[in-house]
Amino acid sequence: MISRRLPGSFESNALSREIAAFRAQGRPFLDLTSSNPTRCGLPYPEAGILAALAAPSVLAYDPDPRGAARAREAVAAWHGVDPGDLVLTASTSEAYGWLFKLLCDPGDQVLVPSPSYPLFHWLAALEGVEARQVPALRTDRWDLDFQALAGAATPRTRAVVVVNPNNPTGQFLSREEWPRLLAFCAERGLALLVDEVFADYALEPAPDHLPTALGEADPPCPLFVLSGLSKIAALPQIKLGWIVARGAPARACLEPLAFIADQYLSVSAPALAAAGPLLALAPGIQAGLRARLASNLAALDAELARRPSLSRARVEGGWSAILRVPALEPGEDLALRLLREAGVLIHPGHFFDLPGDGHLVCSLLPADFPEGIGRVGKSIAPAGGK
Amino acid sequence: MISRRLPGSFESNALSREIAAFRAQGRPFLDLTSSNPTRCGLPYPEAGILAALAAPSVLAYDPDPRGAARAREAVAAWHGVDPGDLVLTASTSEAYGWLFKLLCDPGDQVLVPSPSYPLFHWLAALEGVEARQVPALRTDRWDLDFQALAGAATPRTRAVVVVNPNNPTGQFLSREEWPRLLAFCAERGLALLVDEVFADYALEPAPDHLPTALGEADPPCPLFVLSGLSKIAALPQIKLGWIVARGAPARACLEPLAFIADQYLSVSAPALAAAGPLLALAPGIQAGLRARLASNLAALDAELARRPSLSRARVEGGWSAILRVPALEPGEDLALRLLREAGVLIHPGHFFDLPGDGHLVCSLLPADFPEGIGRVGKSIAPAGGK
Ligand SMILES: Cc1ncc(COP(=O)(O)O)c(C=O)c1O
Ligand SMILES: Cc1ncc(COP(=O)(O)O)c(C=O)c1O
Repeated sequence: MISRRLPGSFESNALSREIAAFRAQGRPFLDLTSSNPTRCGLPYPEAGILAALAAPSVLAYDPDPRGAARAREAVAAWHGVDPGDLVLTASTSEAYGWLFKLLCDPGDQVLVPSPSYPLFHWLAALEGVEARQVPALRTDRWDLDFQALAGAATPRTRAVVVVNPNNPTGQFLSREEWPRLLAFCAERGLALLVDEVFADYALEPAPDHLPTALGEADPPCPLFVLSGLSKIAALPQIKLGWIVARGAPARACLEPLAFIADQYLSVSAPALAAAGPLLALAPGIQAGLRARLASNLAALDAELARRPSLSRARVEGGWSAILRVPALEPGEDLALRLLREAGVLIHPGHFFDLPGDGHLVCSLLPADFPEGIGRVGKSIAPAGGK
Repeated sequence: MISRRLPGSFESNALSREIAAFRAQGRPFLDLTSSNPTRCGLPYPEAGILAALAAPSVLAYDPDPRGAARAREAVAAWHGVDPGDLVLTASTSEAYGWLFKLLCDPGDQVLVPSPSYPLFHWLAALEGVEARQVPALRTDRWDLDFQALAGAATPRTRAVVVVNPNNPTGQFLSREEWPRLLAFCAERGLALLVDEVFADYALEPAPDHLPTALGEADPPCPLFVLSGLSKIAALPQIKLGWIVARGAPARACLEPLAFIADQYLSVSAPALAAAGPLLALAPGIQAGLRARLASNLAALDAELARRPSLSRARVEGGWSAILRVPALEPGEDLALRLLREAGVLIHPGHFFDLPGDGHLVCSLLPADFPEGIGRVGKSIAPAGGK
């Protein structure tokens, strides 16, 4: 009855079951996996947000497959691109879905980075498309492995997905990788999808990092850049994402992409009306959020200074940090133990396909991060211990 | 480069080109195809709508794959169903997409009614699914043709779609058809999708009509009923639709359906927050709209009384009427002529796959319907003419 696009089983893993048990019993825990910015005690310009959503223009329906012109103008101004090169979506997920529909017949493939955002597998599978993971070159700095990329490509490959900066590694593409990646896609006739939802959150960028793919005005392959209000304005609940077509090959896809958009027209009028005002509020929201990221990163470093057996990867950007821990037990066992013994929820690295058991991933958003990371440190590496 | 899910060409037809030319030249015309309720001069409780969208709850993100509990409770109360049987979507289109993903592997088929809503073909194709049209039994009353249904089903058929009342025919399912349809689906192992977006707009229902499939508590096949605020509250811009799983076989699909929803989470917080308040406003909005439908239908009948060569089909429900006209020229030529000579835009029947050239489809929403239909009558059938 159920299609093969879906998982064979919906059993939850031991960690999810334990979380459910904590919740059912009302037992508190500190959540270092929370990436919901609206639940971290950050300041928001609440009156401004509410006013933006209740603009009188929401009383009328003016369907435009690419998204209302006023909203596209606001997004285009934010990125310094042409409003005609934009298609608005209800989310980055929807943007991926539409691009996979545009580029891939059922059975075709896209290449996706690993470690990365765990949704790619299912977003592709739900379109009848295979997401082939391309592991990064090394397990500490996650440079593109062009040999692995070439090895993963087949005649049915249609696109390469990269995330800049990547989630959860925080690593930006480098200026050296970028032209090689463009050339790779051009040679093979592949489209390039660059997810830049975290691009505004550079923390410790490498000197040679590529801040954005949007600077590429004349790519040799179809280039699509994805972003949205979810991270730019830290307002995931508004549901406004977008696709920027960069260069002539991508622009040639705008008519078929608008055709797809026209079948769904999923962006809500309040989100469209609010796009401009919310982008105007975004710099203030980002300032509060960046302060939180920086103070939590400082708290992490203070904790690591006390725990020589623990370290972290450089956080070039994004909302999370990767902890290196002694790989003494399977990652899920460690996460379970931290929840039970220290009352802290933290992601085992394999959740994002980080290889091995030596990584934990924590969100840098929570207000109680300092307390939480203190408990993690104490539990994994009692003071001074190696 | 572009997938085979999409049309081979994006050329517009002669009628669309003519409309574009009218618009480019600023030439006015009466639009009897408009089904946008927010652009027909209908009264809306504007302050109430704006207040509903700016509820303080929209400031927080509380992702729930099936849609926020408060919103589901409001929708469930409206339909008299259990909130646990609902999945909210951004639109009926998204609901179709998710159900096709749930039920169909790429290459599978669904059976869709003809004449009907023209989107089915593309909503299926974009999921790699084939929508096989099942023509109705006769061309004046559009009863289900069970022989055609059986003939169209193959081992790869997964579902049957029906629209109750259908668009544009307005015809409800009958109480006689309903158990046969359920039995057909149960026998073949098919799911049944019933689109009831127009169910609240009965105008001249047949005595034996089935007002809603939601009364069916224990269907022998998976039964999914689709609706949304687009028609119920005449607010298509809010972007809130839903799927009601009816009976045990459909309920068994709720977990995989929620898994799909969880990858997208497309419903905007203002739409979720406003669901309850907007449904509370819906009866008032519907009253104004029904008055418009009734007065336009009366204007249509007054015009037809003057034009013996024209007639209309019974409008059991919905927002449109089907005109029968002398089939003296191809439908598109007639529509072009009406636009050029009478300044009225009206749909040729083939837009909805009505067979032959003897049908026009007009929306009963426009405020200037009486003027428009008068021009149509005069142009097609000069007074007294046969
Ligand atoms: C790489 C990446 N892309 C997209 C998203 C989500 O975007 P949206 O909320 O617009 O679907 C996330 C969220 O964590 C992400 O990590
Ligand atoms: C049969 C039918 N279903 C669904 C819809 C549209 O619903 P939504 O706006 O929720 O996508 C329409 C719109 O005309 C329709 O005719």
